Amino acid sequence: MDLKRARGRLHLQSLRIPPPAVLALLYLGSVIVGGLLLWLPVSTQEQISLFTALFISTSAVTVTGLSTVDIGTTFSLFGEAVIMVLIQLGGLGLMTFAVLVLSAMGIPIGMPQRLILREDLNQTTLNNLTVLVRIIFSVALLCEAVGVLALAWVWVPQFGWAQGLWYSAFHAVSAFNNAGFALFPGSLSLYVGDPVVNIVIPALFILGGLGFIVVGDIYQKRKWSRLTLHSKLMLVGTAALIVWGFVTFAALEWNNPGTLGDLPDTATKLWASWFQAVTPRTAGFNTINTAEMHDSTTLMTMLLMLVGGGSTSTAGGIKVTTLIVLILATAAFFRRSTTLHVFGRSLKMEEIMKVMALTTVSMLLVALGLFAVSISHDGNFLDLMFEVTSAFGTVGLSRGATAQLDTFGLTLIMIIMFIGRVGPLTIGFFLATRSVPRVRYPAGQIYLG
Amino acid sequence: MDLKRARGRLHLQSLRIPPPAVLALLYLGSVIVGGLLLWLPVSTQEQISLFTALFISTSAVTVTGLSTVDIGTTFSLFGEAVIMVLIQLGGLGLMTFAVLVLSAMGIPIGMPQRLILREDLNQTTLNNLTVLVRIIFSVALLCEAVGVLALAWVWVPQFGWAQGLWYSAFHAVSAFNNAGFALFPGSLSLYVGDPVVNIVIPALFILGGLGFIVVGDIYQKRKWSRLTLHSKLMLVGTAALIVWGFVTFAALEWNNPGTLGDLPDTATKLWASWFQAVTPRTAGFNTINTAEMHDSTTLMTMLLMLVGGGSTSTAGGIKVTTLIVLILATAAFFRRSTTLHVFGRSLKMEEIMKVMALTTVSMLLVALGLFAVSISHDGNFLDLMFEVTSAFGTVGLSRGATAQLDTFGLTLIMIIMFIGRVGPLTIGFFLATRSVPRVRYPAGQIYLG
Ligand SMILES: [K+]
Ligand SMILES: [K+]
Repeated sequence: MDLKRARGRLHLQSLRIPPPAVLALLYLGSVIVGGLLLWLPVSTQEQISLFTALFISTSAVTVTGLSTVDIGTTFSLFGEAVIMVLIQLGGLGLMTFAVLVLSAMGIPIGMPQRLILREDLNQTTLNNLTVLVRIIFSVALLCEAVGVLALAWVWVPQFGWAQGLWYSAFHAVSAFNNAGFALFPGSLSLYVGDPVVNIVIPALFILGGLGFIVVGDIYQKRKWSRLTLHSKLMLVGTAALIVWGFVTFAALEWNNPGTLGDLPDTATKLWASWFQAVTPRTAGFNTINTAEMHDSTTLMTMLLMLVGGGSTSTAGGIKVTTLIVLILATAAFFRRSTTLHVFGRSLKMEEIMKVMALTTVSMLLVALGLFAVSISHDGNFLDLMFEVTSAFGTVGLSRGATAQLDTFGLTLIMIIMFIGRVGPLTIGFFLATRSVPRVRYPAGQIYLG
Repeated sequence: MDLKRARGRLHLQSLRIPPPAVLALLYLGSVIVGGLLLWLPVSTQEQISLFTALFISTSAVTVTGLSTVDIGTTFSLFGEAVIMVLIQLGGLGLMTFAVLVLSAMGIPIGMPQRLILREDLNQTTLNNLTVLVRIIFSVALLCEAVGVLALAWVWVPQFGWAQGLWYSAFHAVSAFNNAGFALFPGSLSLYVGDPVVNIVIPALFILGGLGFIVVGDIYQKRKWSRLTLHSKLMLVGTAALIVWGFVTFAALEWNNPGTLGDLPDTATKLWASWFQAVTPRTAGFNTINTAEMHDSTTLMTMLLMLVGGGSTSTAGGIKVTTLIVLILATAAFFRRSTTLHVFGRSLKMEEIMKVMALTTVSMLLVALGLFAVSISHDGNFLDLMFEVTSAFGTVGLSRGATAQLDTFGLTLIMIIMFIGRVGPLTIGFFLATRSVPRVRYPAGQIYLG
């Protein structure tokens, strides 16, 4: 059978270890090496425990951003550089792996024609893959470079060339990879009303969170009507979530003295609402105090964190396309329609199976993780729930519960971050290898992992 | 087309109003009449507001059991009798409606052969339906009568004949209909270690919560191998949930002084664990203080409340069979199997669509309800979440948040109770009418609404 042969060949390429296992091992290796490096006295301004070093390393490699210590004051320049490299490895590794798996499976990706790795796996030569990886890295570095220049415009005048450029580089990498690590106490709260920071940082993490396939597709097609179904869904879904988050956040928090209420003017309030609407899409920076949000806003933020960003991106969560299919399938069911149509393309029934499997596993994971963490921690349940959701979606927003957890709880958070990062990709691999590459009728292909 | 004609005829039977709308109107009418009756001075020992009366009426008709006042001390005997009648109407109305819809759709129900309403709708004469309704009522009254006798054994010696029998009748009706209203302060906490109460009350609500189809099937077949797939799944699923709930509750709460810790002996602790493991299946009585449970136990209880009991029963929630199909479909997906098999029968792919639609709508409802309630209430989020889940599943367990809500919040809880009761039946109606009655291959039929 085609499918079996295809899988067999893929295994062969990876020395007979299934790709998800390779990915998990690579991530685990990075976490351990990173943890040991961060534990070195040269990495820190005041010595931290090996456990803390491993926690920060896990958070960086999984591009989450949760932390038990203040990054800027705890680590030396060397330590910060280690964190930046771990973020870059984690974020790019992720994107590369996802794109490689999809292309190896024969699923077309939005790339210049000569580079598309077609259905026949014999074309997936090492040479092609090398080119693909080089392009991904180039795009990422280009985005980050532009980000550094834009941010330097703010931080060089404020901190001088050396520190200003370093801050710009660190936060550009942290933003594009949706890591959410910041070198300032209180994340980016100091820049709550700064237009440049409020545009550049979100632009980087939204771009990184759309996914390489969408960015490549836009770059290649440049016309809405010619975009793939996946790109259209991602763009519309992302825009809808951002508008909803922005309006709701502003409406709920406008007069809350802990968040928007005490900000100096309307412009600053609007910037802050914008930032808080986009950051739950697994970026994880914040410009207001997350712990001061109303319960209702916190719940909305948690829902946005669960959804996350796009497939083959640096973002986490169940993914925007998964949410869209979930809603479309439910709507179709109540309209008594047996097929799903969107933007003039049909979606296969099998997509529904995928969506259900992915959503069920995710919800079970979050519920189980929350249950396990709550066993050792009777405290503010909302904060704990927020923290577990943040870890699962590799978001990094925090209401302070992580700092209060004991070693058992922190270990669980580490495991949830790891599964939250590697898990959906593993599921995505299953989803990709499950489809027979040659479709028999013109169905739109979207990615759900 | 068969389906269209079938629906057309059903509408005709209900004077062209779709059955779910009839049900909703009947429930709304009962709520209003019940509320006005409870508002009468003769119903109460101390006058209550019309809003409170409507809240209690909604809670009774939807067999939820949430309350803002203590039932036993607030209402007169007449008021208590009104509540009992509302519970009976709500519970039996529900069961009857569900069974009528399913049988009208030609879905075989577990009944003596001569009564099965076959696929041809022409056989669904008014006479047949009357017989069916009479049987349902007889079974319910028989179960309740046995319950009254058993409970009288405890309460007549304690309270004398008049009050003892009244307590027995009220609690038997409240238990069989999964209403959870009790006349004692602290629900059934006084009887935490009483074997009779701990066996009779749960027996009534488990029986009522299995659903008429399962009870009828067991009564008719009396052999495991001959039971329908639906009955087997319901019995296995129910047993698994009870065992899981019992073991987890005991393990988590054994030394908690607020719940099991201060109980006099091991037997009492085990009885209390048993009771708290079965009551979240939408019964709503409690023998320990729900508000004193650990966060972890509270989360587990919420998950059990979301699942609820069986279709065509007096229980609420997304239903046990829905959970089972959700898990089986996910497992099948990861085994790369395209069909679902369980107990030697196959499940159609369409069931997966049903399960996904039902689960998605339910989760959205709970999230939206919680979001709406939390807008006007910044407090203990866990308690609020518990209350909304309890209202959605028409469970009635409470950690005290309902009593603290303002009129806006209480109105939302009333709406959630109403939708939680009428909604799944409406969805169940869609699910039933959606299937073509004549199946083309031997597939197991299960009910998901
Ligand atoms: K992040
Ligand atoms: K109840």
